Amino acid sequence: MGTQGFRTLNEESLIEYIKATPALCSQLGDQVEGLTIKEVGDGNLNFVYIVVGPNGSFVIKQALPYIRCIGESWPMTKERAYFEALALKEHGRLCPNHVPEVYHFDRPMSLIAMRYLKPPHIILRKGLIAGVEYPLLADHMSDYMANTLFFTSLLFRSTLEHKRSVAEFCGNVELCRLTEQVVFSDPYRDAQYNRWTSPYLDNDAEEIRHDDTLKLEVAGLKSMFCERAQALIHGDLHTGSVMVTTDSTQVIDPEFAFYGPMGFDIGAYLGNLILAFFAQDGHADQVNDREKYKHWILTTLRETWNLFENKFISLWNKHQDGKGEAYLASIYNTTKLHLLVQKKYMKDLFHDALGFGSAKMIRRIVGVAHVEDFESITDASKRAQCERRALNLAKLLLKERRGFDSIDQVIASIQEFSSC
Amino acid sequence: MGTQGFRTLNEESLIEYIKATPALCSQLGDQVEGLTIKEVGDGNLNFVYIVVGPNGSFVIKQALPYIRCIGESWPMTKERAYFEALALKEHGRLCPNHVPEVYHFDRPMSLIAMRYLKPPHIILRKGLIAGVEYPLLADHMSDYMANTLFFTSLLFRSTLEHKRSVAEFCGNVELCRLTEQVVFSDPYRDAQYNRWTSPYLDNDAEEIRHDDTLKLEVAGLKSMFCERAQALIHGDLHTGSVMVTTDSTQVIDPEFAFYGPMGFDIGAYLGNLILAFFAQDGHADQVNDREKYKHWILTTLRETWNLFENKFISLWNKHQDGKGEAYLASIYNTTKLHLLVQKKYMKDLFHDALGFGSAKMIRRIVGVAHVEDFESITDASKRAQCERRALNLAKLLLKERRGFDSIDQVIASIQEFSSC
Ligand SMILES: Nc1ncnc2c1ncn2[C@@H]1O[C@H](COP(=O)(O)OP(=O)(O)O)[C@@H](O)[C@H]1O
Ligand SMILES: Nc1ncnc2c1ncn2[C@@H]1O[C@H](COP(=O)(O)OP(=O)(O)O)[C@@H](O)[C@H]1O
Ligand SMILES: [Mg+2]
Ligand SMILES: [Mg+2]
Ligand SMILES: [Mg+2]
Ligand SMILES: [Mg+2]
Ligand SMILES: [Mg+2]
Repeated sequence: MGTQGFRTLNEESLIEYIKATPALCSQLGDQVEGLTIKEVGDGNLNFVYIVVGPNGSFVIKQALPYIRCIGESWPMTKERAYFEALALKEHGRLCPNHVPEVYHFDRPMSLIAMRYLKPPHIILRKGLIAGVEYPLLADHMSDYMANTLFFTSLLFRSTLEHKRSVAEFCGNVELCRLTEQVVFSDPYRDAQYNRWTSPYLDNDAEEIRHDDTLKLEVAGLKSMFCERAQALIHGDLHTGSVMVTTDSTQVIDPEFAFYGPMGFDIGAYLGNLILAFFAQDGHADQVNDREKYKHWILTTLRETWNLFENKFISLWNKHQDGKGEAYLASIYNTTKLHLLVQKKYMKDLFHDALGFGSAKMIRRIVGVAHVEDFESITDASKRAQCERRALNLAKLLLKERRGFDSIDQVIASIQEFSSC
Repeated sequence: MGTQGFRTLNEESLIEYIKATPALCSQLGDQVEGLTIKEVGDGNLNFVYIVVGPNGSFVIKQALPYIRCIGESWPMTKERAYFEALALKEHGRLCPNHVPEVYHFDRPMSLIAMRYLKPPHIILRKGLIAGVEYPLLADHMSDYMANTLFFTSLLFRSTLEHKRSVAEFCGNVELCRLTEQVVFSDPYRDAQYNRWTSPYLDNDAEEIRHDDTLKLEVAGLKSMFCERAQALIHGDLHTGSVMVTTDSTQVIDPEFAFYGPMGFDIGAYLGNLILAFFAQDGHADQVNDREKYKHWILTTLRETWNLFENKFISLWNKHQDGKGEAYLASIYNTTKLHLLVQKKYMKDLFHDALGFGSAKMIRRIVGVAHVEDFESITDASKRAQCERRALNLAKLLLKERRGFDSIDQVIASIQEFSSC
């Protein structure tokens, strides 16, 4: 895709675009006067406009051919919008309760129109910083992950469907490449955009760049990320890609989607919950010591994995005589054997998730893109202490993950690091 | 691709085809009278014609839309010829000494013209059955595998090149699916075309269909085969896909090529050498007990792996500052760490090769397609004994492969099974 037919929109030109686009007009109940349009893109890469009219609303997301938070000096294909739209539609089909509907996609314009997730929806990360409990979050996110991952894997798909879809998403290579760089490479070397809470973490960052065991393990994870087409993953499933209210959970922003290892999504999400946990001490004050909330996060972490595991296994059982080609019912034909392969599969997936989750935690502390959970802790020394605990846990988990048998063991480790 | 422009050729119509095709005429020195044309396809899938004229020669291979040895009842896309031609050209570029040159490819006709590997070239499997030593074989095959695998992996390629090529070869899905079925599925269940030396191996075949540990391991290998795009593999690298003389080694027939695990190629080749070894007792007679030849096969096995490992590592060292994105020199920046990651990589690859190699041995004994090494042993009881030894070794290797640290340990196990 070149730049043919592409224009960068702004609040004004967007109005003209909407008026010229029947799908959008009808979404507004054909009432296109008196619109309010607001750019809200707080994300790192793209522009997001909220469009509200008297009889309807939507969100417009446009990708420009560079990374927004860096600028034109870091070019990035605007074709990412195509893969985001594809993934939103595919994941939306598989899990409509937790993915906003796509109303319109314009490939030359790299523009997606989707459901506006109205207030009180906020970005989950912000809720976690504010200390808000979401009682349905574990249920909803386990739903999302179990459905999107199971149904796009060879447990459900035929080889023919699988390879066709894998080939299509190979086109999203520039975004994969970005992940390779910022998650698996830059934190482990001197790199221009790396930063950390200096001087407090100078030694910690330095240690990571000289930790041979860590680098060896990271190489294995990177290979898996590059080579293993296990399922259609979101690719950027941190707590900033989830919008929530007390009873709604919506996953947005799958522009990094491709066929990769399931553990990358699960790990990204769990890892970001763990970062939220370690940030709490930095948000504690005399009114609220955050201990109860820390407990809630750990409970959510536990529930998310356990529910995910149960739901994934249930889907597998339900569809075990289906067209999925990984474990044919004619071979895995006794209850004992069926349980055996499932146990092995889930154990490997758990370890993958811990590995990728740890890599995602590390990169948020010593790499280019940090998280508001820590950034919002203004006292640098306090922030560094929180970050160091998270970093040390992540290093341990990444290296020793195969020794962890359950999420409870992970939680025990988190608690240890949290009190040292 | 439909059937547009496709005609099944035979000896007569091929002459007309050649006359109408300038690239082929010129290959014959423009002397297209007095051609001798002979169909020699002893393979399982396709038709192969040797075309010899007064001033030139070539081989024509045509894929029909079904599997030759089964018939029209087992349809198979003739587009496989496209991927065979692509792989021949790509592997030929990377290892010209051991891949026949492609002169002409006609996609609608599913037809490849390539260099005629003249006598005394014979199929390696036949040489192994006849007890012929090939002093350069280990050197040549290790060359072929090291070059084709290294240069198509992320050790040499950029992510951009890699994903583009992976996507293209996703198109060869029907052939992948065939492998999934005949290698990873059918031997482990009742299947129409399975056969074995009955009644001798009835229990052995039955045991395989009830061996939970084996089936668990096979599932892991199958997943790797389906999901892991590590390098452009040949996909069918048995000893029937290699033509040899004492000083030439040529790899043909990569119609199963796609981006898969390197261990699948290495294992296929080594596994077929091991089958050749176990067949020797069946070929022994009073003139030749084959002991010396068995020794040569084991030496060749050892040399093949060891040379492969050395050459692969050499290529890696030579290109470590290249565009390959798997192990960036800025991260893997000390000799110690570089050695550490290489050791880990080669160990994993060795275990993958043992796993896939074992699966390939098993399927040749209890699956649909058998090998001439055993089939040519006319005494069924003797044949069964040879096969059982190979089968038992393969089962052990497949299950316990991670406990093997070197090819010498594998050879020790082969020798144990060979004398029991
Ligand atoms: N469908 C939506 N409804 C409401 N707000 C949204 C929606 N999509 C995005 N946003 C807002 O825009 C921000 C950036 O969107 P996001 O898709 O994450 O863009 P980026 O790819 O730049 O990170 C989100 O953090 C959220 O505040
Ligand atoms: N380039 C060649 N030169 C000489 N003989 C060849 C050549 N290619 C194939 N053959 C002969 O044709 C047979 C079948 O070829 P192959 O490519 O293995 O077909 P299939 O895909 O049907 O197995 C080989 O075993 C070999 O005897
Ligand atoms: Mg975002
Ligand atoms: Mg639910
Ligand atoms: Mg984004
Ligand atoms: Mg062949
Ligand atoms: Mg063939």
